[in-house]
Amino acid sequence: MVVPSELEKAMEIFLMCFHKYSGDKEYLTKGDLQKLMENEFPEFLKNQNDPLAVDKIMKDLDQCRDGRVNFHSYFSLLAGLTIACNDYYTRHMIPNKK
Amino acid sequence: MVVPSELEKAMEIFLMCFHKYSGDKEYLTKGDLQKLMENEFPEFLKNQNDPLAVDKIMKDLDQCRDGRVNFHSYFSLLAGLTIACNDYYTRHMIPNKK
Repeated sequence: MVVPSELEKAMEIFLMCFHKYSGDKEYLTKGDLQKLMENEFPEFLKNQNDPLAVDKIMKDLDQCRDGRVNFHSYFSLLAGLTIACNDYYTRHMIPNKK
Repeated sequence: MVVPSELEKAMEIFLMCFHKYSGDKEYLTKGDLQKLMENEFPEFLKNQNDPLAVDKIMKDLDQCRDGRVNFHSYFSLLAGLTIACNDYYTRHMIPNKK
Protein backbone atom coordinates (compact mmCIF):
# COMPACT_ATOMS: atom_id res chain seq x y z
CA MET A 1 0.00 0.00 0.00
CA VAL A 2 1.31 3.42 -0.97
CA VAL A 3 1.46 5.88 1.91
CA PRO A 4 0.64 9.42 0.70
CA SER A 5 3.09 12.22 1.44
CA GLU A 6 2.10 15.17 3.64
CA LEU A 7 1.62 17.29 0.52
CA GLU A 8 -0.59 14.65 -1.11
CA LYS A 9 -2.67 14.46 2.08
CA ALA A 10 -3.05 18.26 2.04
CA MET A 11 -4.18 18.12 -1.60
CA GLU A 12 -6.76 15.49 -0.65
CA ILE A 13 -8.08 17.78 2.12
CA PHE A 14 -8.43 20.63 -0.42
CA LEU A 15 -10.31 18.31 -2.76
CA MET A 16 -12.59 16.64 -0.22
CA CYS A 17 -13.45 19.95 1.43
CA PHE A 18 -14.85 21.24 -1.87
CA HIS A 19 -17.04 18.15 -2.24
CA LYS A 20 -18.10 18.32 1.40
CA TYR A 21 -19.75 21.69 0.73
CA SER A 22 -20.75 21.20 -2.93
CA GLY A 23 -22.58 17.93 -2.17
CA ASP A 24 -23.64 16.24 -5.39
CA LYS A 25 -23.00 19.33 -7.50
CA GLU A 26 -19.79 20.34 -9.31
CA TYR A 27 -19.93 23.86 -7.89
CA LEU A 28 -20.51 25.84 -4.71
CA THR A 29 -23.48 28.18 -4.39
CA LYS A 30 -23.20 31.34 -2.32
CA GLY A 31 -24.84 29.46 0.55
CA ASP A 32 -22.26 26.66 0.27
CA LEU A 33 -19.43 29.22 0.19
CA GLN A 34 -20.88 31.00 3.22
CA LYS A 35 -20.91 27.71 5.20
CA LEU A 36 -17.38 26.83 4.01
CA MET A 37 -15.98 30.22 5.04
CA GLU A 38 -17.77 30.18 8.42
CA ASN A 39 -16.61 26.65 9.25
CA GLU A 40 -13.14 26.59 7.68
CA PHE A 41 -11.97 30.21 8.03
CA PRO A 42 -13.84 31.60 11.06
CA GLU A 43 -10.89 33.73 12.21
CA PHE A 44 -10.42 35.20 8.74
CA LEU A 45 -14.09 36.19 8.60
CA LYS A 46 -13.93 37.63 12.11
CA ASN A 47 -10.87 39.71 11.22
CA GLN A 48 -12.56 41.02 8.07
CA ASN A 49 -15.22 42.51 10.36
CA ASP A 50 -17.44 42.96 7.31
CA PRO A 51 -20.91 41.37 7.09
CA LEU A 52 -20.56 41.50 3.29
CA ALA A 53 -17.18 39.70 3.21
CA VAL A 54 -18.58 36.48 1.72
CA ASP A 55 -20.64 38.46 -0.83
CA LYS A 56 -17.46 40.22 -1.98
CA ILE A 57 -15.52 36.92 -2.20
CA MET A 58 -18.41 35.39 -4.14
CA LYS A 59 -18.36 38.32 -6.57
CA ASP A 60 -14.62 37.83 -7.13
CA LEU A 61 -14.90 34.08 -7.67
CA ASP A 62 -18.12 33.94 -9.67
CA GLN A 63 -16.52 35.16 -12.89
CA CYS A 64 -19.32 33.81 -15.10
CA ARG A 65 -21.98 35.56 -12.99
CA ASP A 66 -24.01 32.37 -12.79
CA GLY A 67 -24.00 32.11 -8.99
CA ARG A 68 -21.58 29.17 -9.10
CA VAL A 69 -18.02 28.72 -7.82
CA ASN A 70 -16.35 25.83 -9.63
CA PHE A 71 -13.31 23.88 -8.42
CA HIS A 72 -10.85 26.15 -10.28
CA SER A 73 -12.30 29.27 -8.63
CA TYR A 74 -12.35 27.56 -5.23
CA PHE A 75 -8.66 26.77 -5.70
CA SER A 76 -8.03 30.44 -6.60
CA LEU A 77 -9.53 31.40 -3.24
CA LEU A 78 -7.23 28.99 -1.40
CA ALA A 79 -4.28 30.22 -3.50
CA GLY A 80 -5.00 33.83 -2.56
CA LEU A 81 -5.27 33.02 1.14
CA THR A 82 -2.14 30.83 1.17
CA ILE A 83 -0.09 33.38 -0.80
CA ALA A 84 -1.16 36.06 1.70
CA CYS A 85 -0.08 33.75 4.56
CA ASN A 86 3.24 33.13 2.80
CA ASP A 87 3.86 36.86 2.37
CA TYR A 88 3.22 37.34 6.09
CA TYR A 89 5.41 34.34 6.95
CA THR A 90 8.39 35.47 4.87
CA ARG A 91 8.14 39.04 6.17
CA HIS A 92 7.56 38.43 9.85
CA MET A 93 8.47 34.91 10.82
CA ILE A 94 11.81 34.46 9.08
CA PRO A 95 13.42 37.91 8.96
CA ASN A 96 16.64 36.55 7.47
CA LYS A 97 14.84 35.02 4.49
CA LYS A 98 16.46 36.41 1.33
CA MET B 1 -6.03 29.11 21.64
CA VAL B 2 -7.54 28.97 18.18
CA VAL B 3 -7.64 25.46 16.70
CA PRO B 4 -7.03 25.60 12.93
CA SER B 5 -9.55 23.94 10.61
CA GLU B 6 -8.56 21.01 8.40
CA LEU B 7 -8.34 23.37 5.43
CA GLU B 8 -6.12 25.79 7.34
CA LYS B 9 -3.85 22.90 8.35
CA ALA B 10 -3.64 21.83 4.69
CA MET B 11 -2.71 25.39 3.68
CA GLU B 12 0.02 25.37 6.33
CA ILE B 13 1.40 22.11 4.89
CA PHE B 14 1.49 23.68 1.40
CA LEU B 15 3.32 26.68 2.82
CA MET B 16 5.82 24.84 5.02
CA CYS B 17 6.63 22.34 2.31
CA PHE B 18 7.79 25.15 0.03
CA HIS B 19 10.08 26.51 2.73
CA LYS B 20 11.34 23.03 3.60
CA TYR B 21 12.80 22.74 0.09
CA SER B 22 13.62 26.41 -0.58
CA GLY B 23 15.60 26.72 2.65
CA ASP B 24 16.57 30.36 3.24
CA LYS B 25 15.69 31.43 -0.30
CA GLU B 26 12.33 32.71 -1.60
CA TYR B 27 12.39 30.31 -4.55
CA LEU B 28 13.08 26.72 -5.52
CA THR B 29 15.95 25.85 -7.83
CA LYS B 30 15.66 22.92 -10.24
CA GLY B 31 17.53 20.80 -7.67
CA ASP B 32 15.07 21.81 -4.93
CA LEU B 33 12.14 20.99 -7.24
CA GLN B 34 13.68 17.63 -8.12
CA LYS B 35 13.96 16.72 -4.42
CA LEU B 36 10.42 17.97 -3.71
CA MET B 37 8.93 15.93 -6.56
CA GLU B 38 10.90 12.80 -5.63
CA ASN B 39 9.93 13.00 -1.95
CA GLU B 40 6.38 14.37 -2.16
CA PHE B 41 5.10 12.91 -5.44
CA PRO B 42 7.07 9.67 -5.96
CA GLU B 43 4.11 7.83 -7.51
CA PHE B 44 3.38 10.66 -9.91
CA LEU B 45 7.00 10.66 -11.10
CA LYS B 46 6.99 6.86 -11.43
CA ASN B 47 3.78 6.98 -13.49
CA GLN B 48 5.23 9.65 -15.77
CA ASN B 49 7.97 7.14 -16.69
CA ASP B 50 9.97 10.02 -18.14
CA PRO B 51 13.46 10.86 -16.87
CA LEU B 52 12.91 14.42 -18.11
CA ALA B 53 9.61 14.89 -16.22
CA VAL B 54 11.07 17.33 -13.67
CA ASP B 55 12.89 19.26 -16.44
CA LYS B 56 9.57 19.70 -18.25
CA ILE B 57 7.77 20.81 -15.07
CA MET B 58 10.62 23.24 -14.35
CA LYS B 59 10.30 24.66 -17.87
CA ASP B 60 6.56 25.20 -17.35
CA LEU B 61 6.97 26.84 -13.94
CA ASP B 62 10.08 28.93 -14.59
CA GLN B 63 8.25 31.57 -16.60
CA CYS B 64 10.96 34.20 -16.14
CA ARG B 65 13.66 31.77 -17.33
CA ASP B 66 15.82 32.62 -14.35
CA GLY B 67 16.03 29.08 -12.97
CA ARG B 68 13.75 29.96 -10.06
CA VAL B 69 10.31 28.72 -9.05
CA ASN B 70 8.64 31.24 -6.74
CA PHE B 71 5.76 30.56 -4.36
CA HIS B 72 3.12 31.55 -6.93
CA SER B 73 4.52 29.09 -9.49
CA TYR B 74 4.84 26.36 -6.85
CA PHE B 75 1.17 26.89 -6.04
CA SER B 76 0.33 26.63 -9.76
CA LEU B 77 1.98 23.21 -9.78
CA LEU B 78 -0.12 22.08 -6.80
CA ALA B 79 -3.23 23.59 -8.42
CA GLY B 80 -2.61 21.65 -11.64
CA LEU B 81 -2.09 18.38 -9.79
CA THR B 82 -5.11 18.87 -7.50
CA ILE B 83 -7.39 19.90 -10.39
CA ALA B 84 -6.29 16.75 -12.29
CA CYS B 85 -7.11 14.67 -9.18
CA ASN B 86 -10.50 16.39 -8.91
CA ASP B 87 -11.30 15.65 -12.57
CA TYR B 88 -10.46 11.99 -11.97
CA TYR B 89 -12.46 11.97 -8.72
CA THR B 90 -15.61 13.49 -10.25
CA ARG B 91 -15.45 11.19 -13.29
CA HIS B 92 -14.63 7.89 -11.65
CA MET B 93 -15.35 7.98 -7.94
CA ILE B 94 -18.75 9.64 -7.83
CA PRO B 95 -20.54 8.67 -11.09
CA ASN B 96 -23.78 10.37 -10.04
CA LYS B 97 -22.06 13.73 -9.58
CA LYS B 98 -23.94 16.23 -11.76
